[in-house]
Amino acid sequence: MSASPPESQRKIRLRQFMRDIWDEGRVELCSVYIAPSYHVRHDPGDPWDGEILDLVGYERRLLASRAAFPDQKFALVGLLEDGGAIAVHWFWQACHSGEIGGFAATGKTIRMSGATVYTFDLLDRLTGHWQIADRLGVFQQLQRNREQD
Amino acid sequence: MSASPPESQRKIRLRQFMRDIWDEGRVELCSVYIAPSYHVRHDPGDPWDGEILDLVGYERRLLASRAAFPDQKFALVGLLEDGGAIAVHWFWQACHSGEIGGFAATGKTIRMSGATVYTFDLLDRLTGHWQIADRLGVFQQLQRNREQD
Repeated sequence: MSASPPESQRKIRLRQFMRDIWDEGRVELCSVYIAPSYHVRHDPGDPWDGEILDLVGYERRLLASRAAFPDQKFALVGLLEDGGAIAVHWFWQACHSGEIGGFAATGKTIRMSGATVYTFDLLDRLTGHWQIADRLGVFQQLQRNREQD
Repeated sequence: MSASPPESQRKIRLRQFMRDIWDEGRVELCSVYIAPSYHVRHDPGDPWDGEILDLVGYERRLLASRAAFPDQKFALVGLLEDGGAIAVHWFWQACHSGEIGGFAATGKTIRMSGATVYTFDLLDRLTGHWQIADRLGVFQQLQRNREQD
């Protein structure tokens, strides 16, 4: 077995960002991680798909996105860094605790997988992302849970 | 403006693979690109999700996957190479020319986006992938086209 090289500063920072911001919802830390201008380059299904957000806009997106899933957790499968960007592929799970897309809360666990490419500025702050998530899988779980309720 | 470094051999080869195998459907070239054992690690919605395929199995997957979309084309947005793997994010489009998932052919263009992480053996042959595609977007297009027909 060969030892893996230590992770880069950017990878360590991206892991911290995912935990502080998206797992724990610490809105007050957004200014540490997010550049003054953040581009949601591609994120089908996200209400901010295509938009350029300032810090307040990003904080609003974070609050809205976590509202139905306040205990959400990301498990990062792998991070690939190249040309100043990092691609991360991930699993996600959360308790469905609030209304989303017309589906009332059921208290059941929802699972999702996805992949995101993040870009950075010279201060290692995030300047945007390109993301795909398995939305059909989530939709099918929400439908199944509603039928079983 | 700074010039980009030249692409690695693996990136060039992955672009050729996407064109020869998935855009053009050249089944006879699978043995050039695919390792004797290929692991579909994660690919929700793919009938071979989780399976380990030999070359014949991979060729069968290629033929089945392209059957409804014989003119499909991938447009690669970016490739990130790290630790022997390559993450690629992409757009795809195709004419819906055959039955798929209960949806009859309409002749209309279907669009999709996704992200894939590929792994390689020492001969630069592909040993597997982890993939997410925006299946909900495709499902919505198929439904809309059926209603309009």
